[in-house]
Amino acid sequence: MLKQQNTLGFLGPKGTHSEAVALYLNYKQAGDWNLFAYDTIYEAIQAVADGVIERCVVPVENSIEGSINITLDTLAHEVDLQVEQEIVWTVHNQLMTKYPKDVITTILSHPQPLAQCREYLKKNYAGIEIRQTASTAKAAEIVASGPPGYAAIGTQRAGELYGLTTMDTEIQDTLTNCTRFFVLTKIKKAVIAGANKTSLVCQIDGKKAGSLCAVLSEFAKRDVNMTRIESRPARTGLGEYIFFFEVDGSTQEQNVNAAILAIQQKSLWLKNLGSFPVTYVDENIKK
Amino acid sequence: MLKQQNTLGFLGPKGTHSEAVALYLNYKQAGDWNLFAYDTIYEAIQAVADGVIERCVVPVENSIEGSINITLDTLAHEVDLQVEQEIVWTVHNQLMTKYPKDVITTILSHPQPLAQCREYLKKNYAGIEIRQTASTAKAAEIVASGPPGYAAIGTQRAGELYGLTTMDTEIQDTLTNCTRFFVLTKIKKAVIAGANKTSLVCQIDGKKAGSLCAVLSEFAKRDVNMTRIESRPARTGLGEYIFFFEVDGSTQEQNVNAAILAIQQKSLWLKNLGSFPVTYVDENIKK
Repeated sequence: MLKQQNTLGFLGPKGTHSEAVALYLNYKQAGDWNLFAYDTIYEAIQAVADGVIERCVVPVENSIEGSINITLDTLAHEVDLQVEQEIVWTVHNQLMTKYPKDVITTILSHPQPLAQCREYLKKNYAGIEIRQTASTAKAAEIVASGPPGYAAIGTQRAGELYGLTTMDTEIQDTLTNCTRFFVLTKIKKAVIAGANKTSLVCQIDGKKAGSLCAVLSEFAKRDVNMTRIESRPARTGLGEYIFFFEVDGSTQEQNVNAAILAIQQKSLWLKNLGSFPVTYVDENIKK
Repeated sequence: MLKQQNTLGFLGPKGTHSEAVALYLNYKQAGDWNLFAYDTIYEAIQAVADGVIERCVVPVENSIEGSINITLDTLAHEVDLQVEQEIVWTVHNQLMTKYPKDVITTILSHPQPLAQCREYLKKNYAGIEIRQTASTAKAAEIVASGPPGYAAIGTQRAGELYGLTTMDTEIQDTLTNCTRFFVLTKIKKAVIAGANKTSLVCQIDGKKAGSLCAVLSEFAKRDVNMTRIESRPARTGLGEYIFFFEVDGSTQEQNVNAAILAIQQKSLWLKNLGSFPVTYVDENIKK
């Protein structure tokens, strides 16, 4: 594969939240990067690991629906990349249609926004057909070219791209609907300016009672604040897990560094995904 | 809604793994239950909570793909049900088509089996179209009535129901591919015969460093073996989580009971999902 100079990969097509974040990064950080859309999160991450592109931006967690499993699993099992920065993106889901006067018969979207709007759909569109698509932008595309009565859940930008009309906005179940994105690179920098969060993944021998507690105590006794713990199957058998930890602070701080070294001793394996800065952005006020 | 006497709900349509488990329960446990297919996991659980049916069987975790979020979220946030029993079901994914000599152009399945077979698909069918369906049985149905070149990933039973031919079997990425199912009821029994596992969910004040560790230490210091921890968004804001714990033993055992009471004291809220027996079944040798 040809190496693409100075390229930022994202989950396409145009009109996805991932593209919105990529556009924001290019604009705000004057990255002057070429943006390249991938069909799947897996392919975007793999392109960075293979050295085809320099970096990619991928979703890692949503405040309602939880982790993006493919991102966590790929980072844990298949590649050796570093988190360069995190973007916390406030998302606004819109219900959009081609013909605003239609009676809606079918609603299309990616499984994550559909799940985020579960209560809204149950209350307002009980019994109508829900169809899953590969992305929110794909849903908008199908609605634009589809029969009357189709509606898509997605971003305002997707609606604009495909000429749809917004029927309802802020339809997610809670108002605090954020998605966290990681910018991933292959080049491991020892220090990233402004880094205030550290992410790591490890596998613990789960056969012993209290082994997870013993690991967590390494954070607690050094007063390192753990902001997140997530278990995923270790893929070695039912009941065996790997754990993702996120903590406040960077490995430049002695207590964080010491805690990670201690946890490494108590783990079957440990991968440090890096220390990085976090930026909060609301898509509606992003410029 | 009319109350349906002695009914076991499951995720339909016919040919899903859930139906296979429901058939197994009826056969093995001589339940003589009426089986009723629901379109979604959410509807099956809600029917039990509403008293429309007595019990339902729903998937809760897969050994490769992890938790079934809708099951955990509904149990935590929306209903007050008890786990009556757990079935650990070894699944065998098959690639099936209508015309065995076709060149495959499109593979259809539910997102979970597609994820379970990710490596297989990448290696054998890179670049062909992958389409998500609402269930594995729906995929088989589409393939049976679709154009040449379509193939479905699903159970042997789904293939038989829709007249498909198996092209490849055991295509999941690891051989230990199990799915755990919960049988849920509204009636809370104090003691269930053979109960050897306990499940609970609680929200902890995550603002304090070490609060999760303090909770886990209640298990550890009583030598209660925690077999699983899973975090899910609390839906109150990014960075706030609820935790699902599973431990060996039942609340009839003094140490388990004491640990849960202690954790309740340290939690914002706690819900005991019950103590229940676990049965292991391989679908290919189930009779």
